[in-house]
Amino acid sequence: MEMINNTIRIPKDEMKSRFLQILIKHGMEQQRADKCAEIFTVNSLEGIYSHGVNRFPRFVNYIIDGYIKTDAVPDLVNRTGSVEQWEGNLGPGPLNATFSTDRAMEIAGDNGIGLVTLANTNHWMRGGTYGWQAARRGFVLLAWANTCVNMPSWGAKDARIGNNPFVIAVPYEPEAVVLDFAMSQFSYGKMEHYAAEGKKLPYPGGFDKNGDLTDDPDQILEAMRPIPIG
Amino acid sequence: MEMINNTIRIPKDEMKSRFLQILIKHGMEQQRADKCAEIFTVNSLEGIYSHGVNRFPRFVNYIIDGYIKTDAVPDLVNRTGSVEQWEGNLGPGPLNATFSTDRAMEIAGDNGIGLVTLANTNHWMRGGTYGWQAARRGFVLLAWANTCVNMPSWGAKDARIGNNPFVIAVPYEPEAVVLDFAMSQFSYGKMEHYAAEGKKLPYPGGFDKNGDLTDDPDQILEAMRPIPIG
Repeated sequence: MEMINNTIRIPKDEMKSRFLQILIKHGMEQQRADKCAEIFTVNSLEGIYSHGVNRFPRFVNYIIDGYIKTDAVPDLVNRTGSVEQWEGNLGPGPLNATFSTDRAMEIAGDNGIGLVTLANTNHWMRGGTYGWQAARRGFVLLAWANTCVNMPSWGAKDARIGNNPFVIAVPYEPEAVVLDFAMSQFSYGKMEHYAAEGKKLPYPGGFDKNGDLTDDPDQILEAMRPIPIG
Repeated sequence: MEMINNTIRIPKDEMKSRFLQILIKHGMEQQRADKCAEIFTVNSLEGIYSHGVNRFPRFVNYIIDGYIKTDAVPDLVNRTGSVEQWEGNLGPGPLNATFSTDRAMEIAGDNGIGLVTLANTNHWMRGGTYGWQAARRGFVLLAWANTCVNMPSWGAKDARIGNNPFVIAVPYEPEAVVLDFAMSQFSYGKMEHYAAEGKKLPYPGGFDKNGDLTDDPDQILEAMRPIPIG
C-alpha cells in the first residue's frame, strides 16, 4: 500500500488476498471465496468502486446478517425448452449470477438461445461482470436484475418503479461491446459517487423535493426522483 | 373531416380507407395494404404521429423509389435450434416486422423462447406495434432495429453510433407494459415534433454545434448530438 497525491494505492494481489481472507473467515469455502474476491477486485480495478471495494463491507454484513448464505448453490426448479428457472437459495449474488450466465451459455450452445431466471438471490454487484463473461466466450448476453422501488415513472412524482440494471454484451473486435447501465439517467451509485466528492452531476439528473430539475446529486437522492432514461 | 380549434379531426375509418386506397393504387395487394393501413392508422390514433400519418408520404415515396417491394415476403435463410435468420427481400417494414414477431412467438410456443433476425427490410415505423402484438398474446417481446449513424457515444462529439429503437413488452394486468424508446434521451421524431411546434424540450436533450448543452431541438438536430440514455 502506498500513498500518492492523497490517494491510497493498493496492489491488486493485496486487495484480492485481503478480500479472500475475510470471506474465508466468514465461512465461505476457499474456491468460492476466491471467485468472489476476484470479482470485487476486478470491479475495483476497472473503476467500478461502487460495486467493488466500496461495496465489500456491505456484502460481508449481509453474510453476518444471514441475507447471504455463503455455501448455497442454485437448484433447478423448472425447465421448458430453452428456458430454465432456478432457485438461488440466497447464495452469494456474484456466484449465482456467474453460474446462471454459464448455464445460459450451455443452453444457447445447444439451441442457439437460452434463458435462465434466478429467484431468491442477492446483489450481483456489477452487471457488466457477466456481460464480459459471456462476450469473451463469443456469446451475446442480455441480462437484468430487479431492485427496490427508487424511481418515479416519466412525469410522476413518487418513486413507484425501480431503476434496474440492464446489461447488453456483444462480442466485437478487438474484444466486445459491453453496456451496463441503470434505468435512470444516473445510477444511484454514480450519484452517491458525485455526492461523496462534493461535485455536481455533469447534466441535470433528476428533481429536488420541490420538483425543480437539478444537477445536485444530494437533492436528487433525498427526493428519490432521478430522471428515467429514454 | 372537421376543424376544431384549428385542429383537423379525421375519423379513423376515413384515415384508414384513404391509406388503403393509396397503397392499392401503388400496387400493394388488398390484404397486405389493409394491414399496413391499419398499422399507420392505429399509430396515429395512439398519438405516435411521427410514425403514423406524418410518415405515410415517405413510405409511399419509398414504394415509388423501389426501396419497398410491396409484395415481397421474407424467406428463411437459416435455422439453428430456436434461432432463425430471415431475408426480408425489401418487403414493407411493418409487414416484415409483424411476420417476424409472429414467427418468434411460434418458436417460443414450442420451445419457451425464440429469436428471429431479419435482413434487408425497411422502417418498421412504431416499434411498440410489435410489442403490443406479442404482449396481447401473452408473450414477452424484446425487439430492436438498426438505424443510421445519428448519435455520439457518451462524451464524444461526432455521431458514430445510432439511437436504435428498442422495445420491451411484458403482459401485465390489465393488459401489458410496453416500452418503446430510442437510445437517445429524446428520439429524433420527438425532437422534430417539438421543433415543428416551435417549442423547447422539457429537459436538455443534447449539445449545440459549440458543444453547449441545450433544450433547443433545432440546435441538437443541426449538430446531430443528442445525449445518449443511461
